[in-house]
Amino acid sequence: MSYFDAASSAPLHPVARQALTASLDEGWADPARLYREGRRARLLLDAAREAAADAVGCRPDELVFTSSGTRAVHSGIAGALAGRRRVGAHLAVSAVEHSSVLHAAEVHEAGGGTVTRVAVDRTGAVDPSGFAAALRPDTALACLQSANHEVGTEQPVAEVAGACREAGVPLLVDAAQSLGWGRVEGDWSLLAASAHKWGGPAGVGLLAVRKGVRFAPQGPADERESGRAAGFENIPAIVAAAASLRAVRAQAAEEAGRLRELTERIRARVPSLVPDVEVVGDPVRRLPGVVTFSCLYVDGETLLHELDRAGFSVSSGSSCTSSTLTPSHVLKAMGVLSEGNVRVSLPPGAAAEDVERFLSVLPGAVAAVRAKLGAPVDGPGASTVREDSLTVDALGKRCPIPVIELAKVFGDVPVGGTVRVLADDEAARLDIPAWCEMRGQEYVGEEPADRGSVYVVRRVS
Amino acid sequence: MSYFDAASSAPLHPVARQALTASLDEGWADPARLYREGRRARLLLDAAREAAADAVGCRPDELVFTSSGTRAVHSGIAGALAGRRRVGAHLAVSAVEHSSVLHAAEVHEAGGGTVTRVAVDRTGAVDPSGFAAALRPDTALACLQSANHEVGTEQPVAEVAGACREAGVPLLVDAAQSLGWGRVEGDWSLLAASAHKWGGPAGVGLLAVRKGVRFAPQGPADERESGRAAGFENIPAIVAAAASLRAVRAQAAEEAGRLRELTERIRARVPSLVPDVEVVGDPVRRLPGVVTFSCLYVDGETLLHELDRAGFSVSSGSSCTSSTLTPSHVLKAMGVLSEGNVRVSLPPGAAAEDVERFLSVLPGAVAAVRAKLGAPVDGPGASTVREDSLTVDALGKRCPIPVIELAKVFGDVPVGGTVRVLADDEAARLDIPAWCEMRGQEYVGEEPADRGSVYVVRRVS
Repeated sequence: MSYFDAASSAPLHPVARQALTASLDEGWADPARLYREGRRARLLLDAAREAAADAVGCRPDELVFTSSGTRAVHSGIAGALAGRRRVGAHLAVSAVEHSSVLHAAEVHEAGGGTVTRVAVDRTGAVDPSGFAAALRPDTALACLQSANHEVGTEQPVAEVAGACREAGVPLLVDAAQSLGWGRVEGDWSLLAASAHKWGGPAGVGLLAVRKGVRFAPQGPADERESGRAAGFENIPAIVAAAASLRAVRAQAAEEAGRLRELTERIRARVPSLVPDVEVVGDPVRRLPGVVTFSCLYVDGETLLHELDRAGFSVSSGSSCTSSTLTPSHVLKAMGVLSEGNVRVSLPPGAAAEDVERFLSVLPGAVAAVRAKLGAPVDGPGASTVREDSLTVDALGKRCPIPVIELAKVFGDVPVGGTVRVLADDEAARLDIPAWCEMRGQEYVGEEPADRGSVYVVRRVS
Repeated sequence: MSYFDAASSAPLHPVARQALTASLDEGWADPARLYREGRRARLLLDAAREAAADAVGCRPDELVFTSSGTRAVHSGIAGALAGRRRVGAHLAVSAVEHSSVLHAAEVHEAGGGTVTRVAVDRTGAVDPSGFAAALRPDTALACLQSANHEVGTEQPVAEVAGACREAGVPLLVDAAQSLGWGRVEGDWSLLAASAHKWGGPAGVGLLAVRKGVRFAPQGPADERESGRAAGFENIPAIVAAAASLRAVRAQAAEEAGRLRELTERIRARVPSLVPDVEVVGDPVRRLPGVVTFSCLYVDGETLLHELDRAGFSVSSGSSCTSSTLTPSHVLKAMGVLSEGNVRVSLPPGAAAEDVERFLSVLPGAVAAVRAKLGAPVDGPGASTVREDSLTVDALGKRCPIPVIELAKVFGDVPVGGTVRVLADDEAARLDIPAWCEMRGQEYVGEEPADRGSVYVVRRVS
């Protein structure tokens, strides 16, 4: 069994396990109490805070432990926005932030605030000058991830932090995906992270707020963690989180090089092993262990099942694997193919043999799914009947069927002719233009329809 | 070392430790994922939910795990209030709720809602008819703890739940102190609890919301835990919480009887072992392991240090042991003596010998603190100068000094004369009337002063 979904959650690091079990006997008491057990718990908590702050690159009194990375993001955004309420109620975030950031932004909008979602390029990165242009006199806060969780693309955090500093806007960095690999460089103001992403236990996030950043914690008052994280401290887990962060950091440079080579193999070889694949994300500025690709004419959920049966645990941003029936907002913002999407995120220690086995299994798995769906194997054939314009009714059909239906009839129109695909699946909006790009055909545009939309494609070759 | 502060946090139960370490290898993956590791995590989570729901007495789909008891309370109150926004914005809580409830009530008030804090009697219990009288047509929610965390008094939850049901108001029960001992009886609507109170690990709370209760989760959207508890699930800790709840319940009846006998010893013998002590809380309707008493002329913090040095870890509601310089809101609401306050809360398994040793150590510890403070050893003596009215200036002096100053000069006024104590310590407002009650003297009342207040006492014997 090869677990290739470290970006969701990493298996517990041996150091975390050891620290956790060792501190269960010492860390259960209330660190606010003055008696022996309380003082002992407090010492553990203080030591963990020092270690975590050192790894983050901040002062211990700037860092609090939260109950998850999501909580760190929610509390960080709410507190920073409230702290700068007088400046204004504008929030700037990248369009490819983690859902915890985007959901916090939605709450801010629902409460009367305004939000700018800064676009990304096709690799998933924001342009620093584009981000800077989104900052306004009433911008209370800006948020940018250190690296994207779905495609691994690293963001230009230091440049954006510089632009924010110049504009007098605090920048919150969601460092969930990168903190295990190293400090976030640049002049950020707030930073959030999640321990189970670096092999620490679940139940621990961290939020750093630089001195001088205006911050007003929201929600009911609570004395714990400087009033920034309500609820009894989970000290054994905090100790384990700090210990494992230190441990993964000690191996980070070496392990990053090793994983980067493995993901490079996947990046380089998948397009030749599997026809009609788009590898997405920045080929260079990227997390060491993450590689993402999408496969034309493939149902992501079925592919994940196939890979699971073959012993590989990966995730997908395809709409059919989400409960919302929409493709991942990240793929959408990048404008890349979403169907048959696979994210491989290697945990530290992932073996080269397992990556090789994955590469040997993948072509068959994709072919099996395509065969089941009746996907076209060749390019557009020449039909006997050729019409200038054809309409495909794919209403009620889910990804990847509308694209398959398009491909099947595409050869029936002559060069210069158009195919109109009527579809109400959200993924079509992303995948039909992506198909055009992959096939070198012209995507004319989208037209409204009584139900769904019509996507118009012109045959140019 | 005897740890007698289980009401703050109980040492990890052996079953919790075992379940936690056993599930570290199985429960780290994302339970929302469809691959093997995710399905395994989901199975653990589902089984824990079933077990916890059985212990609570609700359906599994009515129960979510939160990151702490505090979070369960905050989310429960916010969600229930928002769910019944159309009914009104009135919240009824008892005056002796846990701070998590009271802080949530403060946030509600700050947002324009109204709050009624229902008074308690001298034992710390609400009167069901008094609670019912606080319910109004615009009451969105009522909150009542199952038992008080500082004095152990059990609340008449079933009666209050009945009154709430009749008024059509949902009742949220904070069962943090009692869930390990048994289900909360009565027709409650929401229930919150905290695992580390019953020997489970930190980082796990639970929130039950009965079907049919209007509930609108607040804060940024999150798909986990039915949208009611944001953040990645801490499954090993959840498994440990559920397993230990089952384990403590299996021993609850027997252990309750044993601890009740031990706390009864303390209740009965402390007043004869230590002069000028008030044992507080209901002598019968109370938690098995909790007993609280206050000692006249004693500085709570110093007493806690003395007891810590003697090997006993207890807590205190005295103002001098809190960061706010005010006595515990519970003691205040009960109108009992707050100085020299000691809460003994025995963990399951507490040994009779340790309780006996505590009883043998306590008198010396109290006497040592009193001697340090120069507390009067006898009743009011007869001074040669007797004046009809004396004023004691205790400005700037902290609990228990104002009461000691009062006692020192009290013999200097004749029967019928008054002593006026000028003090700006919050505890004086509680402790001077309490002193009068213990001494059988008349508390005349409080008068405003330029700084602090004047507390007037008339000598009647």
